Amino acid sequence: MKTSLKTVLLIVLANLLLSLAAWGDSRREVKFPDVLDYKTLKCDFHMHTVFSDGLVWPTVRVDEAWRDGLDAISITDHIEYHPHKADVPTNHNRPYELVATKAKEKNILLIKGAEITRDTPPGHFNAIFVTDIAALDVEDFNDAVRIACEQGGFVFWNHPGWKPEAAGWLDIHTKLYENKWLKGIEVVNGDTYYPEAHQWCLEKNLTMLGNSDIHDPITGYEIYEDPELTHRPVTLVFAKEKTAEALKEALLDGRTAVWHKNQLIGREKYLDAIFKASVKIAKPHHSQKDAIWVEIKNNLGIDIQMEKAGAKRAEKLTLPANSTTLLRTKVDSKAEQVKLSYVVKNFLIAPDKGLPVEVIVPIQ
Amino acid sequence: MKTSLKTVLLIVLANLLLSLAAWGDSRREVKFPDVLDYKTLKCDFHMHTVFSDGLVWPTVRVDEAWRDGLDAISITDHIEYHPHKADVPTNHNRPYELVATKAKEKNILLIKGAEITRDTPPGHFNAIFVTDIAALDVEDFNDAVRIACEQGGFVFWNHPGWKPEAAGWLDIHTKLYENKWLKGIEVVNGDTYYPEAHQWCLEKNLTMLGNSDIHDPITGYEIYEDPELTHRPVTLVFAKEKTAEALKEALLDGRTAVWHKNQLIGREKYLDAIFKASVKIAKPHHSQKDAIWVEIKNNLGIDIQMEKAGAKRAEKLTLPANSTTLLRTKVDSKAEQVKLSYVVKNFLIAPDKGLPVEVIVPIQ
Amino acid sequence: MKTSLKTVLLIVLANLLLSLAAWGDSRREVKFPDVLDYKTLKCDFHMHTVFSDGLVWPTVRVDEAWRDGLDAISITDHIEYHPHKADVPTNHNRPYELVATKAKEKNILLIKGAEITRDTPPGHFNAIFVTDIAALDVEDFNDAVRIACEQGGFVFWNHPGWKPEAAGWLDIHTKLYENKWLKGIEVVNGDTYYPEAHQWCLEKNLTMLGNSDIHDPITGYEIYEDPELTHRPVTLVFAKEKTAEALKEALLDGRTAVWHKNQLIGREKYLDAIFKASVKIAKPHHSQKDAIWVEIKNNLGIDIQMEKAGAKRAEKLTLPANSTTLLRTKVDSKAEQVKLSYVVKNFLIAPDKGLPVEVIVPIQ
Amino acid sequence: MKTSLKTVLLIVLANLLLSLAAWGDSRREVKFPDVLDYKTLKCDFHMHTVFSDGLVWPTVRVDEAWRDGLDAISITDHIEYHPHKADVPTNHNRPYELVATKAKEKNILLIKGAEITRDTPPGHFNAIFVTDIAALDVEDFNDAVRIACEQGGFVFWNHPGWKPEAAGWLDIHTKLYENKWLKGIEVVNGDTYYPEAHQWCLEKNLTMLGNSDIHDPITGYEIYEDPELTHRPVTLVFAKEKTAEALKEALLDGRTAVWHKNQLIGREKYLDAIFKASVKIAKPHHSQKDAIWVEIKNNLGIDIQMEKAGAKRAEKLTLPANSTTLLRTKVDSKAEQVKLSYVVKNFLIAPDKGLPVEVIVPIQ
Repeated sequence: MKTSLKTVLLIVLANLLLSLAAWGDSRREVKFPDVLDYKTLKCDFHMHTVFSDGLVWPTVRVDEAWRDGLDAISITDHIEYHPHKADVPTNHNRPYELVATKAKEKNILLIKGAEITRDTPPGHFNAIFVTDIAALDVEDFNDAVRIACEQGGFVFWNHPGWKPEAAGWLDIHTKLYENKWLKGIEVVNGDTYYPEAHQWCLEKNLTMLGNSDIHDPITGYEIYEDPELTHRPVTLVFAKEKTAEALKEALLDGRTAVWHKNQLIGREKYLDAIFKASVKIAKPHHSQKDAIWVEIKNNLGIDIQMEKAGAKRAEKLTLPANSTTLLRTKVDSKAEQVKLSYVVKNFLIAPDKGLPVEVIVPIQ
Repeated sequence: MKTSLKTVLLIVLANLLLSLAAWGDSRREVKFPDVLDYKTLKCDFHMHTVFSDGLVWPTVRVDEAWRDGLDAISITDHIEYHPHKADVPTNHNRPYELVATKAKEKNILLIKGAEITRDTPPGHFNAIFVTDIAALDVEDFNDAVRIACEQGGFVFWNHPGWKPEAAGWLDIHTKLYENKWLKGIEVVNGDTYYPEAHQWCLEKNLTMLGNSDIHDPITGYEIYEDPELTHRPVTLVFAKEKTAEALKEALLDGRTAVWHKNQLIGREKYLDAIFKASVKIAKPHHSQKDAIWVEIKNNLGIDIQMEKAGAKRAEKLTLPANSTTLLRTKVDSKAEQVKLSYVVKNFLIAPDKGLPVEVIVPIQ
Repeated sequence: MKTSLKTVLLIVLANLLLSLAAWGDSRREVKFPDVLDYKTLKCDFHMHTVFSDGLVWPTVRVDEAWRDGLDAISITDHIEYHPHKADVPTNHNRPYELVATKAKEKNILLIKGAEITRDTPPGHFNAIFVTDIAALDVEDFNDAVRIACEQGGFVFWNHPGWKPEAAGWLDIHTKLYENKWLKGIEVVNGDTYYPEAHQWCLEKNLTMLGNSDIHDPITGYEIYEDPELTHRPVTLVFAKEKTAEALKEALLDGRTAVWHKNQLIGREKYLDAIFKASVKIAKPHHSQKDAIWVEIKNNLGIDIQMEKAGAKRAEKLTLPANSTTLLRTKVDSKAEQVKLSYVVKNFLIAPDKGLPVEVIVPIQ
Repeated sequence: MKTSLKTVLLIVLANLLLSLAAWGDSRREVKFPDVLDYKTLKCDFHMHTVFSDGLVWPTVRVDEAWRDGLDAISITDHIEYHPHKADVPTNHNRPYELVATKAKEKNILLIKGAEITRDTPPGHFNAIFVTDIAALDVEDFNDAVRIACEQGGFVFWNHPGWKPEAAGWLDIHTKLYENKWLKGIEVVNGDTYYPEAHQWCLEKNLTMLGNSDIHDPITGYEIYEDPELTHRPVTLVFAKEKTAEALKEALLDGRTAVWHKNQLIGREKYLDAIFKASVKIAKPHHSQKDAIWVEIKNNLGIDIQMEKAGAKRAEKLTLPANSTTLLRTKVDSKAEQVKLSYVVKNFLIAPDKGLPVEVIVPIQ
């Protein structure tokens, strides 16, 4: 009886959907420009479901990703930690299977992944682009990482400062690095930015990632806990096209930046390209005596918070997301252009170091 | 190894929490007044988890209930429909077990319940306040309802207009009603109000309920699909105290109303009491010639949308939620009070029938 | 003493501003695309100041215009109605003088204008692009309009349905029309749309305008009175460039549309161009059996509310402002494209008549 | 003709309003509790209109005050500074006359006032509760203050740190103080808090005020310039009743506090009373081992940001405005109550010094 009931219900539902010629679902996504001839893909490579210690069915992660405007995700349930196993027997490859079709429908690249979970040190590591997660369920940590790499996996270190008392770059991390097993680090995990990890990525040429590590459903309610955290952290990947292959190539080549709260974190080359692609300076529309008036557009979905470089006292100029700013500035009447030097405080090219930029206003 | 890892992780987490002397989580709830010497409890008696066709782990339903300011919930997974059973073996009483402690911590009354699911007719019915859900998993529909009642259950009819082609009050519903098995009907389910069910409740003295029937996580994103639906439907129960026993007694006595979109739906007695407890009229603070000025407060968390009774052309007066309205009205200089007759259009005491009220302003 | 004090204060303020090398003010404007090789200018040609019955100093109207992203405004104080004249002596050309410099600084085209104000009929008429407002202050209504036209003015009829008991197209309006003095009509004034005026513009080839007629300061508080009115009405003018001359040429040529609440009102040619410039349909990213999945972007700053043309039951598809909609639709496997016929309900090409559009999805 | 036209228009408008039996306007105000047997009145004693250097007609200030939920205002145009005098001839008592009726209709106490304006030092001073502003228009500063006091005026020092190069408590201020002419100081003016003024008020027993000094219309757009400034500064006055006399008595007695951004600034006695009247601690609803769970309500319209007193590392507990916080805390099983000592960081009882409070949870 129960099987037939289920069948009946499914048929009813299917007919209902098909009776509509067209059906739609809408989102408003925060926009980032494509830069340097790459497509800018928004990605989250770290999330959990009921198949480890998460609290949602795997398909929810695809719905959330679509709603948030992501291009690619990896569901990375813990291989070794299954608090729900009394009710959900362990089945490592199952989350991927359950959402593969839905991901295609929603135009999300689904990357097979898992979290190799050990006490700190060494800590937790994500292996993405792997082919068989069950094969990574082995006792020895180094074996697990090695097998992941042999499967073609891209391995990165998660929340490297999670347990402050045991944190730091230790011999075991050097070994992973020298074996070329470790390819990247999360400089952002959830609501936390790790400046030391940012520095390690710069020094050791590792790929920077920023991921949600979300266990709960993603709602709008996080705002009560941290008013600045209005979106999940996102790894921006600058890829040749929107395919799994191009995504992996870009990660291996270190072409990423991280969008965290109202900050961008990444190498100068990429942040500078985003700035230039986003900020548009018009010709002055009015001049009088020694001053000009000019409109500056910020087409980026985040505020650009600038401070005058080398100013005696702080002189701020914020270009809010998706806004037009009217700028009035002094001008030397003989100059052909006005050049204003700023530091973008919320575009971090190194810990505590903003992106230097020049705002150039043509006069004639 | 895995067990010990889990243990280690749990200890770490527990220590982290206990190392804080105090930890807090905050919400802003929509407020309803207590009326007629009863406490007004906000309830949702219809929701699903991964244990039937829902998409969240059961504990999520408690977190959502707390966030939404609910006093009581019932998790009512389908008894007969388990699309996830390949991964989550059937275990009818398990959702209740999994959340019992969390519900106590969050001050939510947890009512054991389940959904008896048959094709329409008869349709779907919730049985709440039952003791053993597994015992309801029988082939015959009438047997299932009878057993629920024998366990002390309160049975109500869900979304009675769900399948229009087969809907309506049929012999099978008359039989349930005459057996005194059917105690209530959902006049609201999800985003839909059923006027015919509203009428049946009035005519047959059945209890009105309004529930979410939520399967997905509850986020703020529903707003895109229906801008008026900014909260889940809530059954307001007017109970002697906040206990499971008092809640059941109130449901059996029909002491409920339903909060749906920007509407209240219920018997005149309760809606009138909510109006009187929410609307406060000051003394006029100014008068001039034949007019007075007076402030009216609406302390209710929802707008009160009134229209002048018997007016030739529509004369509207809306008291927004949690607001003060400045009213200027004509006055007969010899009168001791001004009496304004309105109909509250969004307080439905019957299908298409608003609550009649009088706004009385004392003059002297 | 007082003069010197004033001087001191002004110098202090000026020095403060000049001590900043650069100073900025930001806005977020609702975006409309340029269409048909014209620039789309956002304009409001009807507003008041303390120089007639308005409640703000004239410069406020420029600040508000900049904040609202307008390209052009006209301050149109009543010529004949001056309730503040005991405190602000009549000086018809003064508001224009007071704001001319600020308008240039803020990149707003300032059009000299005034409101010729008579009881209904004939009612109120705006004359914009005039050169000397004082010359219009004459007793005879027809003389005032004639002089405005002789000055090169563009005259349009304001809020034509304002006094229902005396409204309608009467002989006096026919005379203005036949003299070629009347060039346009407000189809929207403040929060009101006049369908009859819309029809007159279509039949008599008059230019459609939508203006605020604002007397108060513009705040965000109007939302309490009409939740749909989240912006002032705007006349969109499709001009060859952003100059006063091009603006006038476009008005004379009838190249306008009106943005009112969540509606666009105008001739089919322009609304269709805005639709085509705003809605972008991708190639399907997934197909399965007889269905395809495709993303549609709406880059316009307002929702596009469509209904299936000729459908038996209402089949709605809304593309929210600045959003991506995921569409799933049935497909005939042998077709080369899917063609979906809709009516855009909130793009009014005539009273009660939405814009017909076709959404074409390429399959191969 | 013009006069008759005006008359016609006014009659039309009056009839329109009177044809409605009742007409309403609504607001949502931020709520503060009455404390210590006083009524808590929300006041702004510093604002400008077109009659000095403001940009709105005086009645706008009453509409804004009502909308913002104020109980009392004073329009305080500069006596000596009239940049609009070419168009608005000087008339010192006129703003008060123009708004007196509207203030009564809107239930706003209107206090006659003006700003005595001199270069710094001495700076600017407001005189409120004066009877004839024209009489203060004299050359000598001390004469102006003396005359204000002789009229029964309450004189306070405005924005005492406005010009940093010339700021400070100088001999001239000592003279005003010793003459008992100076009764209070603005510790907040517009978006600026002056800690030194806060200290002077504590040391010299002067009344603390916080006022808007608004010149522009008040809109919601300030948020772009300072995201924390979502409301104008407000002087809370603890008065025996809502009358001008009681208001003055309270000001003379120093019974005030200032609401600025998300802070309250004032004497410990009043801030403590507001805390106690706003924060409600329930009995624990659950206990387990050595922990209890309890709900804390914050009925105040602003967040209460607490930090654990004497904690080794920052331990924060924020009670958001109008919210319920679920608190879990450790408990000694033998204790009869849990006593948690906090400092409310955003209730400033002195510069940089938060209000100490104890949160006491009864256990049995």
